[in-house]
Amino acid sequence: MNIPEINLKRIVIIGGGFGGLRLAKKLSTKDYQIVLLDKHNYHAFQPLLYQVATAGLEPDSIAHAIRQIFAGKENFYFRIANVDRVDTNSQKIYSDIGDLDYDYLVIATGSDTNYYGNQNIERNAMPMKSIPEALDLRSLILQNLEKALLTNDLDERSRLMNYVIVGGGPTGVELAGAMGELKKHILPHDYPDLDIRRMNVHLIQGADRLLPTMSQNASEKSFKYLEDLGVQVWFDMMVKDYDGKIITTDKRPFEATTLIWAAGVKGSLIPGIEGEGLIVGGRYVVNEFNQMKGFDNLFAIGDVALMITEENPKGDPMVAQVSIQQGKLLAENFNKLKLKKALKPFRYKDKGSMATIGRDKAVVDLPGWKFQGWFAWFVWMFVHLVSLVGFRNKVVALMNWVIQYFQYNKSVRLIIRPYKGKNGQTGDDPNVFS
Amino acid sequence: MNIPEINLKRIVIIGGGFGGLRLAKKLSTKDYQIVLLDKHNYHAFQPLLYQVATAGLEPDSIAHAIRQIFAGKENFYFRIANVDRVDTNSQKIYSDIGDLDYDYLVIATGSDTNYYGNQNIERNAMPMKSIPEALDLRSLILQNLEKALLTNDLDERSRLMNYVIVGGGPTGVELAGAMGELKKHILPHDYPDLDIRRMNVHLIQGADRLLPTMSQNASEKSFKYLEDLGVQVWFDMMVKDYDGKIITTDKRPFEATTLIWAAGVKGSLIPGIEGEGLIVGGRYVVNEFNQMKGFDNLFAIGDVALMITEENPKGDPMVAQVSIQQGKLLAENFNKLKLKKALKPFRYKDKGSMATIGRDKAVVDLPGWKFQGWFAWFVWMFVHLVSLVGFRNKVVALMNWVIQYFQYNKSVRLIIRPYKGKNGQTGDDPNVFS
Repeated sequence: MNIPEINLKRIVIIGGGFGGLRLAKKLSTKDYQIVLLDKHNYHAFQPLLYQVATAGLEPDSIAHAIRQIFAGKENFYFRIANVDRVDTNSQKIYSDIGDLDYDYLVIATGSDTNYYGNQNIERNAMPMKSIPEALDLRSLILQNLEKALLTNDLDERSRLMNYVIVGGGPTGVELAGAMGELKKHILPHDYPDLDIRRMNVHLIQGADRLLPTMSQNASEKSFKYLEDLGVQVWFDMMVKDYDGKIITTDKRPFEATTLIWAAGVKGSLIPGIEGEGLIVGGRYVVNEFNQMKGFDNLFAIGDVALMITEENPKGDPMVAQVSIQQGKLLAENFNKLKLKKALKPFRYKDKGSMATIGRDKAVVDLPGWKFQGWFAWFVWMFVHLVSLVGFRNKVVALMNWVIQYFQYNKSVRLIIRPYKGKNGQTGDDPNVFS
Repeated sequence: MNIPEINLKRIVIIGGGFGGLRLAKKLSTKDYQIVLLDKHNYHAFQPLLYQVATAGLEPDSIAHAIRQIFAGKENFYFRIANVDRVDTNSQKIYSDIGDLDYDYLVIATGSDTNYYGNQNIERNAMPMKSIPEALDLRSLILQNLEKALLTNDLDERSRLMNYVIVGGGPTGVELAGAMGELKKHILPHDYPDLDIRRMNVHLIQGADRLLPTMSQNASEKSFKYLEDLGVQVWFDMMVKDYDGKIITTDKRPFEATTLIWAAGVKGSLIPGIEGEGLIVGGRYVVNEFNQMKGFDNLFAIGDVALMITEENPKGDPMVAQVSIQQGKLLAENFNKLKLKKALKPFRYKDKGSMATIGRDKAVVDLPGWKFQGWFAWFVWMFVHLVSLVGFRNKVVALMNWVIQYFQYNKSVRLIIRPYKGKNGQTGDDPNVFS
């Protein structure tokens, strides 16, 4: 990897998401050499992926080049790498760009879509955990309407115009809201020769309420907002199977060409990191200092880490705030380690949670204050703008939101790269004429 | 294609570029049914493709959804289609989404990269005539720097850091300028462990000056601006061959992994449209009414059309203004046709031309006024902003340019989809960990 050997201990961080990025920013490069690896050259602001998928934003609003973030930082090295495995005995990482020794290794690989072992669903459903996946979804949503125009088979047309989202957590709810807005305000103008009233957006939730980690008020209001936008919400329903046409559940079937799977995530594990009781529920078990069980130079933070304590036996939720706070604390603890001071244990400080369903429609649960409606929507927008990395990203996202607000529009309805299926086998040849 | 048969003559337009779009907008749908076909669902503002390729803009600034442009227009149908061939006897179009009868057919397919029959160059060089191509180029430019970091082979590193652009017209000059800015202001901060002074941007021009269709002043100033940005310009040099590593010219060889081909375009012809003397230099010969030679219901406008008259024996240049003016006039002539009035012959009104080389550096030739420098840059920016389709595109592009101006930055340095070669055979698997 062409990383120089110097007279400092080397910390290798795998993953430039919320946790890895915060850790790398906070770490002192006077005390350590830092190597950050990611399979992309950018940090992606995952909570807004659904806006990329629903034609609201382009990737540049939610992605920020990692090199730009760390410009000028000494003893810091970034590499685009896909890590194949780790050898904890020789303290070595093996990747597609070569191997690398580490003194300390931090796994911050986040999470990926969890299909719970159902291969049919994995083969046929659309995930939305990365920017390329969100762009594929945007293409597919639009492609299916274009296809619906072309068919005279009423069943096929109906399937093409049915969009089923599985999972009533924040991702599913926000995605369903944005789809509802497309259906209500935009698509009828775009497709005058298609009866958009026949388009259906279904949201299937396994629990008996939406946003189950939020307050009862938030659940009820988000349900009402979705109904206002024409989204059909199904509670207490479990999806069993999907063959690309028919979604089988424990209650009724749905016919749909598009199934968006937002029903679960699992830690992104790396082969070679093994130990008794180390992996539980697809995540690395860590102690209060984010050290992996059985290792003192191996750490995991964020979604891929599971910190179980007596007072918190289920662990913290897999959300950005936990990753950020763990990344920040681990940086402090590395400094303490250098000074041979006692490490500080992690305690999650819940700053609250929020979700937006559409224009003027959001739900916010702060500690001690829960509210919904246009002010919640405003708070949601403000918090997300502030959280975006980089001045330019904030400005571009804000401009898009302001214009969308006044125009009732989502303008990025562009099929830049047609979605050709998970194996690239279907879809149009984009090169027949220019 | 599910287009209803109604009691109006049907005009089919193939291509939603500058010409086809203007024509479709101006045509009266009281007199004709209009069908617009394009292989993409958006209109692309091609003069700014180079900014997508050089990390200045995202596609949504220069692309506009065609359906959005025509929302509310009656008797108008848009379809995404790749046209395979035309049968002029039965007046039928055959495409990947079915066939369609036409009463009048307008070919507005524009132009594509012309490699002049050199298959090695076609296989190994990067074109930049569409948004996907510009995104591929952006990925490749960044990927090659990442690769340069990894190699200890000095020859390979040098090849990876050599960027050769062929063609000294507006596309080549603007691209070289943007690459020069990346090299001068941005990449040294992004790649501290790479000696960016060793990066070379070469611009190879066959003629003895840059921008040969513009004034001598514009040629000289653009050359000076490029030199100031560290671009090496080579005049009177013809590229002969390229194997992916070595560029052979009639003078000296260049070793480079990236060759960007901006040296020529050719009309995008459609199989089945044939006739004696109809195709000259890869374009359809048309009369002053843009009617194709030998046909009275077949038209061609823009880059794909070649209008030769006694006073203009070489035809008009292949630029956006010609396409726009021909599209506009053809719409008027269709109305005259309906009223059985005499058609109006086309005369190109040259509104001038301009090119930007970088921050505060542009050249403008207006009829009767030629100027260069920061005011030219300002005029360039104003004209391009006004020309972009849609209010949102203008705002987003302007915001990007203003921020770039003050930050000396180009922030879209994102490898969203790694470029994997023209056959997709190389490159990284983006899915090893998330």
